[in-house]
Amino acid sequence: MNFKKIDEKDIQALKAIVGEDKIYVGEDINEDFSHDELASVKRMPEVLVEAKTTEEVSQIMKYAYDNNIPVTPRGQGTGLVGGSVALHGGIMLNMSKMNKILEIDEENLTLTVEPGVLLMEINKYVETFDLFYPPDPGEKSATIAGNINTNAGGMRAVKYGVTREYVRGLEVVLPNGEVIEVGGKIVKNSSGYSLKDIIVGSEGTLGIVTKAILRLLPLPKKTISLLVPFNSLEEAIETVPKVIKSKSAPTAVEYMVRDTILSAEEFLGKPFPDKSSDAYLLLSFDGNSKEEIEKNYEKVAELCIESGALDVYISETQERHEAIWSARGAFLEAIKASTTEMDECDVVVPRNKIAEFVKYSNDLQKEFNVRIKSFGHAGDGNLHIYVLRDDLSQEAWDKKLSEVFDCMYKRARELNGQVSGEHGIGIAKMEYLRQSFSEPQLAIMRGIKAAFDPTGVLNPGKVIL
Amino acid sequence: MNFKKIDEKDIQALKAIVGEDKIYVGEDINEDFSHDELASVKRMPEVLVEAKTTEEVSQIMKYAYDNNIPVTPRGQGTGLVGGSVALHGGIMLNMSKMNKILEIDEENLTLTVEPGVLLMEINKYVETFDLFYPPDPGEKSATIAGNINTNAGGMRAVKYGVTREYVRGLEVVLPNGEVIEVGGKIVKNSSGYSLKDIIVGSEGTLGIVTKAILRLLPLPKKTISLLVPFNSLEEAIETVPKVIKSKSAPTAVEYMVRDTILSAEEFLGKPFPDKSSDAYLLLSFDGNSKEEIEKNYEKVAELCIESGALDVYISETQERHEAIWSARGAFLEAIKASTTEMDECDVVVPRNKIAEFVKYSNDLQKEFNVRIKSFGHAGDGNLHIYVLRDDLSQEAWDKKLSEVFDCMYKRARELNGQVSGEHGIGIAKMEYLRQSFSEPQLAIMRGIKAAFDPTGVLNPGKVIL
Repeated sequence: MNFKKIDEKDIQALKAIVGEDKIYVGEDINEDFSHDELASVKRMPEVLVEAKTTEEVSQIMKYAYDNNIPVTPRGQGTGLVGGSVALHGGIMLNMSKMNKILEIDEENLTLTVEPGVLLMEINKYVETFDLFYPPDPGEKSATIAGNINTNAGGMRAVKYGVTREYVRGLEVVLPNGEVIEVGGKIVKNSSGYSLKDIIVGSEGTLGIVTKAILRLLPLPKKTISLLVPFNSLEEAIETVPKVIKSKSAPTAVEYMVRDTILSAEEFLGKPFPDKSSDAYLLLSFDGNSKEEIEKNYEKVAELCIESGALDVYISETQERHEAIWSARGAFLEAIKASTTEMDECDVVVPRNKIAEFVKYSNDLQKEFNVRIKSFGHAGDGNLHIYVLRDDLSQEAWDKKLSEVFDCMYKRARELNGQVSGEHGIGIAKMEYLRQSFSEPQLAIMRGIKAAFDPTGVLNPGKVIL
Repeated sequence: MNFKKIDEKDIQALKAIVGEDKIYVGEDINEDFSHDELASVKRMPEVLVEAKTTEEVSQIMKYAYDNNIPVTPRGQGTGLVGGSVALHGGIMLNMSKMNKILEIDEENLTLTVEPGVLLMEINKYVETFDLFYPPDPGEKSATIAGNINTNAGGMRAVKYGVTREYVRGLEVVLPNGEVIEVGGKIVKNSSGYSLKDIIVGSEGTLGIVTKAILRLLPLPKKTISLLVPFNSLEEAIETVPKVIKSKSAPTAVEYMVRDTILSAEEFLGKPFPDKSSDAYLLLSFDGNSKEEIEKNYEKVAELCIESGALDVYISETQERHEAIWSARGAFLEAIKASTTEMDECDVVVPRNKIAEFVKYSNDLQKEFNVRIKSFGHAGDGNLHIYVLRDDLSQEAWDKKLSEVFDCMYKRARELNGQVSGEHGIGIAKMEYLRQSFSEPQLAIMRGIKAAFDPTGVLNPGKVIL
């Protein structure tokens, strides 16, 4: 990819679009913009531009397209695979200032937002209308457009499905600057190829989301959590397919080990309700009354005890509930704080293969003499497994990480899993994506990229080459 | 499109793939295969081939691709827009004999089926496992691949969403004969562009579905229906946004008029519980106990009465429930039997615009002196509006239909609706699709078609040119 370098004329043209004070060059660009939360790749953009309107995004994109300048859209930079890193320099488009909630429509149960609205703001806002936005990734300070671009699933995907199912419509700026609208405030749609559904999860490589219409549900009036200690991680995870098979419709089913809980306690400075056991399942159930969900969680509690659980702690109050789930939300940061560097494997496998995969990953610790931590969405088969660098030299770390990942992704393929459940491919997982698909599939994906972005100026070097 | 005509050599090659007895030519092809349920376009394929395995489909497609012969995949031919008509002759691939249920997986809550399995067979089968396949289009004798290819939504989309959300994975034969698998038994997936989601709803123009992995839910133990008579259709439909806004989570909200009910009674030879009023809402609620759904349907009943409903009939027994919903399922056939020919407008509009759109459509009857019947999914904004030919001459009918449709689709666009909610574009709605999108969107759709089908041999002349 041979892109044009930014020169003074480009800077002036960009200033004419967004104004002097929305342009940052050279040392004025904060170092944070050179990387995301986890991916090892770092690169400073040549120019950082803050957009405030769709019209500005359109004009910037048109200018970049006409001048063959790469553009990397960016929200809060909370990604884990380098999707928002300006790999080829050029323009970084900071979308986080387009952060207004535009409209709540109670007759259509939709919320219309700008791309930079934070996930945490959405639920806080819609709850005041007794409404509910189900997708619930751990990282609440991500932007909604970040969630849309990775099709983030989060913890409630077990019951409610993933982000794609809650995106009704999008306004999107295409790589050549044209603005299109896909979907809308409509519940059904069979009107040509669903561009909305292919843009969701495309990691900012097909178009730039400048507005989103989200689907809301009535807010469940009651949520109950079960914290279930087990003697071993295997026992805990082997219980999960039984829970699914019991048809008790949990909202979320997470697993965790004591180690991770202790790290989270230290990181948050808050005690976790129980840490006497080696492994835990954490489940939640929601509905409109205690009676409605009672039968379900009682059935699951019994089933857990039969499967070797040491106890079942039921949290009914909002306070206890939040204590547990805020710890869960801090796991990634807590593990990260416990080592020098780490990388993540975000595979998704069929739900009855989780136990096998987690056991396999844990065994790799001994085989490769490296620390591996995991937690994850046991109820939907999406694992978050972290390989920790600790005091390894750069060379040793690169080699070890690559060997360990080769094993993990190979095993995931054998179990009919996929490379990423919700964090995407970005730069970091491109090779594993390539390995997991046949050439005809890859060729179609390249064709789709070319249909949206014939010259490849939008977020180049990501997902697929 | 300049395709090769079928000759004796082609017939022999096809016979070598599927066997002598699976090939039909000329007068041996039943006339039914020249059309679907509604679209006025008719065309006989040059050869009809019954496939029994993925391998056969792959070989046929490869042969067709290598020889530039068009291929039209077909299930039960229950479509309404000509999507399964062999517009350019060539090979019609009858997929309805690939009709085995392959596996139910209770640990992953999935059902794996061949493409020709009928919708009615799926729910019958999974219910024996206390499981549930939510999509519920009226036409139960459609194949599952037909539903997947139109992203059919059906009546329960209000609560459960559309077919796309219940397709976890697909095996697909590409136009060049390659076989790919997209998705899988996994709950989440962010691994490159989601080919699964673009194939769903693509009306057999991107690939041929040869296997599907469907997502199941636990079967709700209790379903209750409300039949609510109103003095006028307007009053009935204007109640719907209030129902949505009440956050009472109905499973389905349909509307109907007495006229249609009378036609359905005649067609089925079975009495409908009530036909004293001009218009009705029909709602259903489901859950695991009467108590769970009681508050919701009581709230809705009250709200209907406040909005002018004359009564609220509650059906709790399976028998009464089925009497009502089987009538609803027969509306299309009943209306069709009441005239010489008809065509349909399947637009979807935001839910709070339904009343406006239905009123507008009804008013067109006077303006154009033509009978127009409608019923539909009031709860999800998807209308089924039928223009009846009665005794019009061919010429007068063609002119009138085109004028009436021009008005309807124009108004749908003004209301931010889309051309098709669930029946697709096929041949019949291509012009309206073209009008509803900007050129950049159409260009991307063409690019997607080319990425899957560079020579255009698969189901040519459909959706988009």
